[in-house]
Amino acid sequence: MCRFVIYKGTKPVQLSHLLTRPCHSIINQAYDSRLRLDHRRPINGDGFGVGWYDSVYDEELGNQPCIFTSVTPAWNNVNLVRLAEKIKSPLVFAHVRATTAGTLSLDNCHPWSYGKLMFMHNGGIAEFGKIKRKLMMSVPDDIFNWVSGNTDSQWAFALLLSKLPNPEAKRFSPAVLQRAMQETIAHINALSEEFGITEPSLMNFCVTDGETVVATRYITSRTDEAASLWFSSGSTFSEYAEGGHYKMSKTDKRENIIMIASEPLTFEKADWMEIRTNHMVVITPKMNLLQIPIVDKFYVAPSDPTATSRGTEFAAAKGFLSPRRDSVHAH
Amino acid sequence: MCRFVIYKGTKPVQLSHLLTRPCHSIINQAYDSRLRLDHRRPINGDGFGVGWYDSVYDEELGNQPCIFTSVTPAWNNVNLVRLAEKIKSPLVFAHVRATTAGTLSLDNCHPWSYGKLMFMHNGGIAEFGKIKRKLMMSVPDDIFNWVSGNTDSQWAFALLLSKLPNPEAKRFSPAVLQRAMQETIAHINALSEEFGITEPSLMNFCVTDGETVVATRYITSRTDEAASLWFSSGSTFSEYAEGGHYKMSKTDKRENIIMIASEPLTFEKADWMEIRTNHMVVITPKMNLLQIPIVDKFYVAPSDPTATSRGTEFAAAKGFLSPRRDSVHAH
Amino acid sequence: MCRFVIYKGTKPVQLSHLLTRPCHSIINQAYDSRLRLDHRRPINGDGFGVGWYDSVYDEELGNQPCIFTSVTPAWNNVNLVRLAEKIKSPLVFAHVRATTAGTLSLDNCHPWSYGKLMFMHNGGIAEFGKIKRKLMMSVPDDIFNWVSGNTDSQWAFALLLSKLPNPEAKRFSPAVLQRAMQETIAHINALSEEFGITEPSLMNFCVTDGETVVATRYITSRTDEAASLWFSSGSTFSEYAEGGHYKMSKTDKRENIIMIASEPLTFEKADWMEIRTNHMVVITPKMNLLQIPIVDKFYVAPSDPTATSRGTEFAAAKGFLSPRRDSVHAH
Amino acid sequence: MCRFVIYKGTKPVQLSHLLTRPCHSIINQAYDSRLRLDHRRPINGDGFGVGWYDSVYDEELGNQPCIFTSVTPAWNNVNLVRLAEKIKSPLVFAHVRATTAGTLSLDNCHPWSYGKLMFMHNGGIAEFGKIKRKLMMSVPDDIFNWVSGNTDSQWAFALLLSKLPNPEAKRFSPAVLQRAMQETIAHINALSEEFGITEPSLMNFCVTDGETVVATRYITSRTDEAASLWFSSGSTFSEYAEGGHYKMSKTDKRENIIMIASEPLTFEKADWMEIRTNHMVVITPKMNLLQIPIVDKFYVAPSDPTATSRGTEFAAAKGFLSPRRDSVHAH
Repeated sequence: MCRFVIYKGTKPVQLSHLLTRPCHSIINQAYDSRLRLDHRRPINGDGFGVGWYDSVYDEELGNQPCIFTSVTPAWNNVNLVRLAEKIKSPLVFAHVRATTAGTLSLDNCHPWSYGKLMFMHNGGIAEFGKIKRKLMMSVPDDIFNWVSGNTDSQWAFALLLSKLPNPEAKRFSPAVLQRAMQETIAHINALSEEFGITEPSLMNFCVTDGETVVATRYITSRTDEAASLWFSSGSTFSEYAEGGHYKMSKTDKRENIIMIASEPLTFEKADWMEIRTNHMVVITPKMNLLQIPIVDKFYVAPSDPTATSRGTEFAAAKGFLSPRRDSVHAH
Repeated sequence: MCRFVIYKGTKPVQLSHLLTRPCHSIINQAYDSRLRLDHRRPINGDGFGVGWYDSVYDEELGNQPCIFTSVTPAWNNVNLVRLAEKIKSPLVFAHVRATTAGTLSLDNCHPWSYGKLMFMHNGGIAEFGKIKRKLMMSVPDDIFNWVSGNTDSQWAFALLLSKLPNPEAKRFSPAVLQRAMQETIAHINALSEEFGITEPSLMNFCVTDGETVVATRYITSRTDEAASLWFSSGSTFSEYAEGGHYKMSKTDKRENIIMIASEPLTFEKADWMEIRTNHMVVITPKMNLLQIPIVDKFYVAPSDPTATSRGTEFAAAKGFLSPRRDSVHAH
Repeated sequence: MCRFVIYKGTKPVQLSHLLTRPCHSIINQAYDSRLRLDHRRPINGDGFGVGWYDSVYDEELGNQPCIFTSVTPAWNNVNLVRLAEKIKSPLVFAHVRATTAGTLSLDNCHPWSYGKLMFMHNGGIAEFGKIKRKLMMSVPDDIFNWVSGNTDSQWAFALLLSKLPNPEAKRFSPAVLQRAMQETIAHINALSEEFGITEPSLMNFCVTDGETVVATRYITSRTDEAASLWFSSGSTFSEYAEGGHYKMSKTDKRENIIMIASEPLTFEKADWMEIRTNHMVVITPKMNLLQIPIVDKFYVAPSDPTATSRGTEFAAAKGFLSPRRDSVHAH
Repeated sequence: MCRFVIYKGTKPVQLSHLLTRPCHSIINQAYDSRLRLDHRRPINGDGFGVGWYDSVYDEELGNQPCIFTSVTPAWNNVNLVRLAEKIKSPLVFAHVRATTAGTLSLDNCHPWSYGKLMFMHNGGIAEFGKIKRKLMMSVPDDIFNWVSGNTDSQWAFALLLSKLPNPEAKRFSPAVLQRAMQETIAHINALSEEFGITEPSLMNFCVTDGETVVATRYITSRTDEAASLWFSSGSTFSEYAEGGHYKMSKTDKRENIIMIASEPLTFEKADWMEIRTNHMVVITPKMNLLQIPIVDKFYVAPSDPTATSRGTEFAAAKGFLSPRRDSVHAH
């Protein structure tokens, strides 16, 4: 299992506050992590990537995101430390890998970008080798030849690109990204079914065009728990105590920052709310946060008496993800 | 264009004598190279690989080759320098890359191994993106999922594996490897024709099972020259003058060493003979060297009045590759 | 804190049985590790190194050890995995780093070799920056210029080399290595005292000439515990259950294998005995294992009523490291 | 011999226009280079570094430069390609290494920074091992412990830092940097003389505080030629023909850009003027360019009848570096 974090703010964040300085950042989180499901591979030292959009648009620089990846561990990457002190961005994706699939290679590091889009994944598509070839066949030539690595994750992005009317577009409506995401999951599920795969796939996918963010917490099972996914929102994210202790503050009514992460990024667990299993989260350009159920045969409605079968995590989530929190308004 | 060298000897060679010490080894050859065709990319600093078989069979160690690859330049790789001083092998493949296709990644470094087999390539399959998908479809599942990189070269090896009755076999007759090689080239040519590709492909392929070596010098053109390929044979390969000046000596009638290389590895050019364009070279387990024409629509017979159209290199080759040299006997 | 293992056997071990296959090898040990003292840096992903001597002497290859190092994590290093399957050695040092000092660089990876000697370290010299310059001044020119990195560990090796009558010698008696080790520690202690350093230094040093091994478990404190150090001996080290479960067996009276490690390498903790704090362990060419106290102002004799102040680890060690175990006889 | 380039402009340059896009950039220059003196090591694939200052001051980001270094060849570094498309800076140092001294390691990649200062070097201090220790002794503790690598170049920077009244200052006058540079060279010369070193040292050093640039073209010889150094100035540096063909234009009277490089960066050689041997070039904050002779025992005045002994390069330089060019005025 990997780890990731998404930051979207009305003001840009200095990458160091997100990545290198907090003692509980995804880079420094490599231990004391009780939420992860896959105990075979507890260390996220198999590559790292961060992608970000410019804080000020400059025609010469274009509107594609910039991506920095590394196969050496993030916690000891001097280039990352130096860049993180110098770069500010209003929309950041960062990812640390544990290689459950694919070799250690820059080509296999998340996130990937295509035109203005950026994508990353936490989880794994079960028995991907069985469906890989048929999935490959279904994407158009230019996307097929764009794929540089060999992971289920990059091919999932390729599939998502093939669901978009124009993957080279400059802007995508939230509805278009949302629909493409749903079709991607449905397509993978159809292939898995065709090849008789029964092991659950974990598909926590994130995509953005620099304005809208769509992230999923999803598993192809009615009973197993999906990989964890949390969010937090507030007005400032800052260090409140020396040693990299950060917290999210709500200094006024407005919420200027939304963060989504595989695990809470601060020790203030109360600041974090769990995203429901088999739901999609959308952060709109205007900073609204929506939670939308992904209703298919793996969906278990909260009112369903079998809902408790997801176990404690889900039950807890029900508690504090009350309906009124589903939409967070910010300017 | 890349560079490679093959060593096969009745006695093992210390890798340093092949790779790190000679001033004209493929690692140190990066300049003063007038034979290469592709002037766009004159530096072979884009990865390196060496594969070798054990000099003494040990059941516990198995009979697969060992492979060491690197994405940092070979000339400055301390691990390579140290290993080359300590390893001896009777059959070595070594390769330095210039990325004409595929990204800089260990997955894309030659040679690759599969069971007992080892493969490398110098050249490029023209417009590979067009035929890649159909080629991928034609290999069986286990070979398809074994491919870890994204180059034309590794897929050519996958295709060759699919032409073998049993790619996991412990031994392959020269005839079986030779036929698989020919079918691989024919298959690629058929695909290129199907997709209307007219740019010539350069297919200097090498495969071995640790006993037999099959290497091709091949181009899909009747008029253009293939990438260069040379061989040398003798009884000892050693340093005759300080500073890494090596030569091949013929101290007795027996020829214990055969080397095949993209370019002569010594300044004694007379020691090296060019392999004919669109020919296949086979080194048998008993150290016979055979040159066999690859007769297809791109073949130009030496007696053909159009033969001269290949230009000076080919004409020169005709001179010193006289028929009696086609078979070199050694014990 | 780092991790290391030493293997010395009358028969060579395939490196994979030591490094890559055991589920509790130093590479795979990165979690479930309750013995380590430094909780700030629990992951050993900051570089790796293994050094070994040939199993058969070959004049052409020389008698220096071969060393393979890497700055990417050992658990995902394809070269290491492949080499470990092919190399056998009767004397191996392996080390995984957590950078408490020095940057991530091949130059800073343990072990280092000098002529026939090999050295590694687990621990740290307190406030090394204060004594570094004066230490540097005390080594002769050739050793000074040989140092390629910037760690306390490599300089400790340089200092040890300067204590030897002839560091380029082909062979060293156990007494000579033992004395050099003691003088190295004494020299570092004198410097630390001169510069008023009071924080304890952890000096678990290991040196070998390919025949004798000298390892220390040492701390410059009468009350704090040294970094852990264990040994195990037996006749075979092999997998008893699938999934990399290894154990040391004593199939006959002879003990052919001695292993020393920062932590027990098997789940059979009973196979492992702790080495006493502030002691030196010597494995002689004939496989005798001796434990010798390092008697200086930090030494606490077992009979000393203050001995218990070392805490539980030391107390436990007293229990099962009974005097008769201090010398292990093997053929 | 290495390669470097300095850019200083009144407007920021997108790094890609300096580094990755021009077909004759220092990255792509690895061949067709007739100016370099050291033919043993003609390939600059041994590491790369670029350092730059922010184009807009941001208090949170500080005023130190950002540095990106790599041990894989620059021409194939995907991170560099992506970052260069996104970063703009008014003052850039870039350097490609050929390891004449020091191992391949990020610690040894130029440029280095210390506070607001940045430094790089092309050349080599002759027999550095002989003077290294005494040089090390002469720098204060904090600078001594800051050095992370093991090259003559980084120690030369350390020495220069020790010549500054306050190396942590926010700003340095041109005179202060100039004097520190001269004292650094004088100090190294004194040490070389003390140790009887007669082989010439090549000291093309560059230092900047983000406003002033001081660069030297210097050799410790009256007869040998220094490593080459050129400059160009103009109002725009842009692509005039597809394929990365760049030139410096002078569209108006003002000169907004000054570039200094080890070799001309464009095929328009007329745009480039050679800097005189044993001179120092200063670019002031207001974009004046001054050439100042370094007058010591190795200085040969242009009027000196022995001046021709420097050979053709110097003679040529005399021709077009006429006095009126010594000071270039720009707003």
